[in-house]
Amino acid sequence: MNAKQWNTKAEDRAARLARAAEALGPRLAGKRVQADAIGQLLEAVIAPGDRVCLEGNNQKQADFLAKALVQVDPQRVHHLHMVQSVLALPEHLDVFENGIASRLDFSFSGPQGARLAQLVSRNQIEIGAIHTYLELFARYFVDLTPKVALVAAHAADAQGNLYTGPNTEDTPAIVEATAFSGGIVIAQVNEIVAEGSALPRIDIPADWVSFVVKAPRPNVIEPLFTRDPGQISEIQVLMAMMAIKGIYGEYGVQRLNHGIGFDTAAIELLLPTYGESLGLKGKIAKHWALNPHPALIPAIEAGWVESVHSFGSELGMEDYIRARSDVFFTGADGSLRSNRAFCQAAGHYACDMFIGSTLQIDLDGNSSTATLGRIAGFGGAPNMGADARGRRHASPAWLKAGREARQGRSGAAGTPRGQKLVVQMVETFREHMQPAFVDRLDAWTLQEQAGMALPPIMIYGEDVSHVLTEEGIANLLLCRSDAEREQAIRGVAGYTAVGLARDKRAVENLRDRGVIRRPQDLGIDPRQATRNLLAARSMRDLVTASGGLYQPPKRFRNW
Amino acid sequence: MNAKQWNTKAEDRAARLARAAEALGPRLAGKRVQADAIGQLLEAVIAPGDRVCLEGNNQKQADFLAKALVQVDPQRVHHLHMVQSVLALPEHLDVFENGIASRLDFSFSGPQGARLAQLVSRNQIEIGAIHTYLELFARYFVDLTPKVALVAAHAADAQGNLYTGPNTEDTPAIVEATAFSGGIVIAQVNEIVAEGSALPRIDIPADWVSFVVKAPRPNVIEPLFTRDPGQISEIQVLMAMMAIKGIYGEYGVQRLNHGIGFDTAAIELLLPTYGESLGLKGKIAKHWALNPHPALIPAIEAGWVESVHSFGSELGMEDYIRARSDVFFTGADGSLRSNRAFCQAAGHYACDMFIGSTLQIDLDGNSSTATLGRIAGFGGAPNMGADARGRRHASPAWLKAGREARQGRSGAAGTPRGQKLVVQMVETFREHMQPAFVDRLDAWTLQEQAGMALPPIMIYGEDVSHVLTEEGIANLLLCRSDAEREQAIRGVAGYTAVGLARDKRAVENLRDRGVIRRPQDLGIDPRQATRNLLAARSMRDLVTASGGLYQPPKRFRNW
Repeated sequence: MNAKQWNTKAEDRAARLARAAEALGPRLAGKRVQADAIGQLLEAVIAPGDRVCLEGNNQKQADFLAKALVQVDPQRVHHLHMVQSVLALPEHLDVFENGIASRLDFSFSGPQGARLAQLVSRNQIEIGAIHTYLELFARYFVDLTPKVALVAAHAADAQGNLYTGPNTEDTPAIVEATAFSGGIVIAQVNEIVAEGSALPRIDIPADWVSFVVKAPRPNVIEPLFTRDPGQISEIQVLMAMMAIKGIYGEYGVQRLNHGIGFDTAAIELLLPTYGESLGLKGKIAKHWALNPHPALIPAIEAGWVESVHSFGSELGMEDYIRARSDVFFTGADGSLRSNRAFCQAAGHYACDMFIGSTLQIDLDGNSSTATLGRIAGFGGAPNMGADARGRRHASPAWLKAGREARQGRSGAAGTPRGQKLVVQMVETFREHMQPAFVDRLDAWTLQEQAGMALPPIMIYGEDVSHVLTEEGIANLLLCRSDAEREQAIRGVAGYTAVGLARDKRAVENLRDRGVIRRPQDLGIDPRQATRNLLAARSMRDLVTASGGLYQPPKRFRNW
Repeated sequence: MNAKQWNTKAEDRAARLARAAEALGPRLAGKRVQADAIGQLLEAVIAPGDRVCLEGNNQKQADFLAKALVQVDPQRVHHLHMVQSVLALPEHLDVFENGIASRLDFSFSGPQGARLAQLVSRNQIEIGAIHTYLELFARYFVDLTPKVALVAAHAADAQGNLYTGPNTEDTPAIVEATAFSGGIVIAQVNEIVAEGSALPRIDIPADWVSFVVKAPRPNVIEPLFTRDPGQISEIQVLMAMMAIKGIYGEYGVQRLNHGIGFDTAAIELLLPTYGESLGLKGKIAKHWALNPHPALIPAIEAGWVESVHSFGSELGMEDYIRARSDVFFTGADGSLRSNRAFCQAAGHYACDMFIGSTLQIDLDGNSSTATLGRIAGFGGAPNMGADARGRRHASPAWLKAGREARQGRSGAAGTPRGQKLVVQMVETFREHMQPAFVDRLDAWTLQEQAGMALPPIMIYGEDVSHVLTEEGIANLLLCRSDAEREQAIRGVAGYTAVGLARDKRAVENLRDRGVIRRPQDLGIDPRQATRNLLAARSMRDLVTASGGLYQPPKRFRNW
C-alpha cells in the first residue's frame, strides 16, 4: 500500500463548491445562483487548464453561460480545454481569442467554420480532433471527461432538478460524464418553478447538478431543420423520385435517417404522392431517426410513419408533436424527449439507410463538407454514414446491400454479412456553379494547413453505397474495381470536369449492368418531375397539413 | 385532416394504469405495489402480443419480476415478444415453454444457450435476431420499443425515484425507451426508503417509473468478472507477455477494453511487473472501458490506471471503488454509476483496442462463441471488436494500425484512415482438447439449424487485426491476400489440424516479414513466463493489494 490520495477529484469538487459559497455569499441559495453572480461563480469553480464542456448543441445553446465565460478574468481562468459538440455562437470562439481557452475538441462548427480556420492558421487555437457526436460523447467517458459542464435546460425546480423541454439533445450525456467523475455541473435555465411546484417532468435529477442560474433571457435555439417547400426545385423533385423508386423501393428501406437539406425534404414531401402512386406505403420509411422535420408532416398525416426518435427538436413543432405522441417519443407531460446519444446509436445500429448531401465528392467516393478556408466539422454524418460493422441483426435492405457488395468485390465470395445503405445525394453543381465532383477534395489541403493526422473526410468512399445526382444513380456496391467505381462516379457527374472526363464506353457498360441507372432506366419520366408532386408546396401548406398545429418561426412566415 | 387518433399510446397507458388501480385496490399506494399483488399487476398491465423488456443484464437480474411473469395466466397474457439483453435465469426461457411469450430478440444467453437451442429446434421460440448490446438498445428507440419494461434497482423512495446502486447497467436505456413511448415501467427494488428520506442518489427520476415493488429478496447479481489468479497458467503468462510487449507496447495502446477471461486477467496482473520492467508505465493501458475487474487492482495501486468507465459493476468491489473514486465513475454518494450504453459507445469509439477470447476461429479469421447445440449470443464483442468506421479522431495506435492495413492490402494505396486493433487471444486447444482453430465454424451449421439469415459470427475476420496464441502473434493487418491471412492463422495454430496443415515455407516467409512473430522474435524467453510474474497469485493477494477494501464473494474465498 502506498500513501497516494485516491479521492482527489471528490476533494477538489468540495473545495470548488466551498470557494463558490464563499465568493457568492447570499447570492447563492441552495444550488440557485443569482444571474449577476455568474462571473464570480465561474471564476470560483473553474481552474486554469480545466477541461470545460460548454453546451453548444446543434440547436439549443447555453448562451448565457457562454457570454459569462468570455467575461471571466483571463488572469484567473486560462488555458481551458474546451470540449463541445457544436461551435455555434461567436462566444464559442471568443474564449480562444481572449486567452481564456487554448485547446478544442468538437464535432461541428457550421456557422463558425471560417473563423475557426483563421484562428487555427494564427495558432490561436489548438484542435485536438474533429469528431462525430457519438464519438465525442464516448470520449467524455474515457479521455476527454469534462471537469466543468455548462449546460442549458428549460426549467429547474427548487431542488435543482432539470426539465430540458423538447431539446434534451446532448444534456444527459454531458451531465452524466461530468457529475460522476467529480466534476461541476452548472445549468442555465429559462425559469425556476416556485418552491413546492413540480416540473412538467424531470430530465436530469438534481443530485447530478451543482448550480442553477436563471438566465435573463431564454436560451438561444435554432430551427435548423425547417426547409421551406417553396424553395424546392424540380431537379430536386426528380432526384427525390429516383431515390424513392430506385433505392427506398428496391431495397425496401423501412428504417432510416435523412440528412438536413432540400434534397431530402423533397423526398419527405413526395412520399404521400409519388410514393403512394408506387404502392410503397407501409413498405418503406416507417421508422425514423430524425429531428422533427416539418417536411415530414404530410407523410405522417397520411399514415406513412410509425415512429420518429429524435436527436433534438424543432422550433414550432411543439404542439404538433404533442398531438402526435403515437409517432414521437414524448414524456408524460406530452412534450418531446430527444436524446442525441441514443438517436445517434439508433442511426448507427438500427437504421438501414443514411441519405444526405455533401459539398465535394472525389473519384474514390470520399466526400467532405470541409472546403478551403473553413473547418466545418462532421456532426452526425460519419456515425450514420458508416457501415455499422458491429451490427448483427438482419433486414431485407441490409442483406441485399451486403449481397451486392460481395458480388461487386469478388463475385459473391467472402463471408456473408449485410451492409448499410449510405447514399450521397447531390446536384452536380452546387451554389455559384461550384462542381460537387472534384478530382481532389479540399480536405487534403486543409489537412496540410491545419496539421491534421488525416484529411477531414466526412464519409469515406468505401462506406458509400450509392451516389445520386440529377443524372442518375451510381450503385457503388456493384463496382468490381476502383477503376469501375471511378467511372460509375464520373457517369453521374454531369457536366462537371469530372463528368466530362468519363470513359463513355465504360459508362455505357456500367449502365447495361445496372450499376448506373438514368431516370428512364428507372421508368421515370423527367417531365413528370414537377413541383405539383410535392405534398406541400409552401410553409403554409405544411401548417395546413398539420391542422394548424405546426407554428413556424416568424422568419418562415410570409402571410 | 382525418379523424385518426394520434394519442392511442398515451390513452392505452392510462387505461392500463386504471386497470391496475382497479385490480389492486389498496395493494397499490401511489406507485407502490405490494409484493403479493405482482401477478395481478402484470396481468392488468400486460396485454397479449406486447413487446416486453425483462431486465436481464449481464449481472443484475429483475428476478422477482421474472418469476412473477412465469406465473401469470397464459390465457390472459400470451404471445409476448420478449426483448432483453441477457437470458440468464431459467425463468427467461420458462415464459416460452409455458406459452406466455413466443418471440425473442436478445444479445447474450450464456448460461441458457443450450436450452435456448433446444427450444428453437422444437419451434417453441421464434428468434428475431441476436444483437450486440448497443445495437439492441438502439432498436429500442426504433423498431423494438418495449411496451412494458420490468427492471431492477437497489432502492426507491416514496415518490418512485430509483437508486440503482453500482449496477446501473442497462436500466437507463430500457426505461428511457419505454417511458417516453407510452409504455409502462415496473421496478423491483430491494428496499423502499421511508417517506421523507432521501436516496443516496437518483439514477432514474420517478416520473419515468409507473410502479415500484419491494421484492421479498434482493435481486440476483452475478460476479461475472472475477478471475482467481490462482488458476492462471504459465501458458497464459507467456501469452500475456507477448500481448504487452508485442501489441500494447508496440502500438502504444492507451485506451482499451478487455474481454472476460483468464487470458486478459493475466495481462492485467502483468502490467505492474512485466510491463513495469519494459518501461511501459504511463505509456499504455491508462484509460479503460471495463467492468471493475478485481485483477486490475494491482495495476491501479501501482498507478497505471487513470480512468475506468464501466458497463456494470462487480460484487465485492464496492468499497474499493468508493475508496478509488479518482479512477472510477462514481456518484456524489461514492458508489459506482455504471452505464452499459455509454460504456459500449466508449468501447466502440474511444478505445484503440479490444482484446478478447473466443471458442472458434476459422481460416478467414472469423470467430464465434456459438458452438453446436448452443445459441450463446454475442454480448458486447461485435460492437467493440469491429472497426469503428465512423471514428474521426486520431491516436498513434489507431494510425499505426491503419498504416499497416493499407500496406497489407495494397501496398500503401487507398485513402488513409486509422483502424481499431482487434485482438483474438486463444490457446490453440481449449478445454477437453477442443481445437480453437477450425476449418469451418459451427456457426454455419447453427445458421442452418436455426434458419438464420447469416451465420452467428461474433467477430468477422476482416475486423481482426491480430491473433495471439501460445505459439506467437499473427498480424493480419500486414497480410497481402486471403491466402497469406490463412497461412498467418495456420502459423500460430499450433498442433491443431489447422496448424499442422500449414505451408511451412509460407509461414517462415511471413515470419521473416514480421507478420508472424514467435516469443523469441519478440525477445521473450518462455522460461521467464512463470506465475511469479503475476502481481497477485491468489484471491488473497488481490485482497491484500486492495488494502483489504476488496471483499470477494464467498465462493472465491478459501481462507
